[in-house]
Amino acid sequence: MTEEAFDVIVVGSCMTDLVSQSPRLPKEGETIHGHNFFIGFGGKGANQCMQAAKLGAKTAMVAKVGNDSFGDSYIQNFKDHGVHTGFVAQTSAAATGVASIIVNDAGQNAIVIVAGANMLLSKVELQDALPAITSAKVLLCQLEIPPQISLRALQMAQENKVTTIFNPAPAIPDLDPDFYRLSDVFCCNESEAELLTGSSVNNVEEARCAGRELLRRGCGTVIITLGAQGCVVLQASESTSKHVPATPVTAVDTTGAGDSFIGALAYYMAHYPTMQLDEVARRAGQVAGVSVQSVGTQSSYPHRRDLAADLF
Amino acid sequence: MTEEAFDVIVVGSCMTDLVSQSPRLPKEGETIHGHNFFIGFGGKGANQCMQAAKLGAKTAMVAKVGNDSFGDSYIQNFKDHGVHTGFVAQTSAAATGVASIIVNDAGQNAIVIVAGANMLLSKVELQDALPAITSAKVLLCQLEIPPQISLRALQMAQENKVTTIFNPAPAIPDLDPDFYRLSDVFCCNESEAELLTGSSVNNVEEARCAGRELLRRGCGTVIITLGAQGCVVLQASESTSKHVPATPVTAVDTTGAGDSFIGALAYYMAHYPTMQLDEVARRAGQVAGVSVQSVGTQSSYPHRRDLAADLF
Repeated sequence: MTEEAFDVIVVGSCMTDLVSQSPRLPKEGETIHGHNFFIGFGGKGANQCMQAAKLGAKTAMVAKVGNDSFGDSYIQNFKDHGVHTGFVAQTSAAATGVASIIVNDAGQNAIVIVAGANMLLSKVELQDALPAITSAKVLLCQLEIPPQISLRALQMAQENKVTTIFNPAPAIPDLDPDFYRLSDVFCCNESEAELLTGSSVNNVEEARCAGRELLRRGCGTVIITLGAQGCVVLQASESTSKHVPATPVTAVDTTGAGDSFIGALAYYMAHYPTMQLDEVARRAGQVAGVSVQSVGTQSSYPHRRDLAADLF
Repeated sequence: MTEEAFDVIVVGSCMTDLVSQSPRLPKEGETIHGHNFFIGFGGKGANQCMQAAKLGAKTAMVAKVGNDSFGDSYIQNFKDHGVHTGFVAQTSAAATGVASIIVNDAGQNAIVIVAGANMLLSKVELQDALPAITSAKVLLCQLEIPPQISLRALQMAQENKVTTIFNPAPAIPDLDPDFYRLSDVFCCNESEAELLTGSSVNNVEEARCAGRELLRRGCGTVIITLGAQGCVVLQASESTSKHVPATPVTAVDTTGAGDSFIGALAYYMAHYPTMQLDEVARRAGQVAGVSVQSVGTQSSYPHRRDLAADLF
């Protein structure tokens, strides 16, 4: 597998986004007319993988989609962006995961996710991907697949000294404590940090507090993202925490910005393994800051060629 | 065109139904997890056409879909059921119409329709279909395409002594008065009759009143459907109105039942042009009554072989 070694391998979700734009959200029993509809590629796992790939990382995705047209399109989307799809399984037992998204004219959205095939990702597929997982530089997981599969992937990686990044999203209140000690980098946003720690996280100081609590649970490094306020970085090996401010930008669509940040984090950690993590976070923040300046999820993620040379 | 003469030609809509089943409906800003997702074929025009085809009518659809996978699938669906698709145009200027439907565990739904390509159906396509429209036995229209296109199709039919059925759905309050005089049969449900007449329609007596008002506006025959209460039939040529009760059935899914009724109406009027309209309505009610006893929209519509012989 040496010639096949991946910079970043993601064990996670693929979702087809079905987006309806409508003046307002419908009530129960109501039919309303919207003005636009489009299909997009989403899912936290795939989003993060695509951002890493667009920055130039050699990436592979371990995922399950349906044996249907949405699944076929998703695999083609990965191929079009150079993501290795040898570990993307197709099943006839469930449909490709979908997110039905209704966006009103005020930009608020209501989302129903039917995870479908994502929830059938199993140890069988992990076993198939084992050589690729154990030879990768960075492994990345989230919670849109069965949690025990994410946990097993993190174990496989840690046992083979592969750097692990875990993004506990969507947050679940009773997260298995093993996730903390298996995370070299545990990266979450404000609301995920709140749910996990039980403390409010609205500013840098509260994020530092929550981060210290998460460090105590066994993570190597904790990064809590704070949107326009940047992020805080806390390392078990250092007694201080660092606030990394974000460069102010005019955001037009923040959908998927968190995934852009994490995908970029994985890219930088794979390519610059000795870089200080606050500098890694600063650069990842710059990448995510570009993504919010255009509409779309994966389509808004910048390529390396779109970014300033001093980010590389 | 004589060898191609159609029993029923429908000028109307095609919609891809994107159905998510979820414990409840999401609020603004909320993401929730549903338990099932499926794609169905819908749109009032196509539904009605499919029911007529399943009963054995020689049918053609005049419609516009997107030049996309949903459009391709829709055309294949018509072909699979013997519907002539020579007048189903594909456009790259809009996506195939979609209805994003969220159904909660209580069976209530919230729907956002993005009509897309349906709203681009134009006089060009009507002109292409002119020989088929003018030689058909029955022409059927609704309001999920530009209303002036429905109106023009009804005019073309009436000028050529083709029987017209008009279903004013979804109801619009300021319906062009020409629709009434162009309708040999004007068929609507309670809520549409209410919106058009401004009077409440909750029972047979109120439906008779609303029907008389619609007759006064110029329709040849008015049929107002009342769900489990059956329907009322009023003819301009007779001074009486008839109540046609429905046979009691155990409904499991009433989605698309109104379209089943109207498609069956078109079938019977094409095949039995001298049959009394209350008998036509009774038989159409039997067909729709079968459709509500299984799940799905077009997939719940009975074929001729599924029905009692005395309906033919």
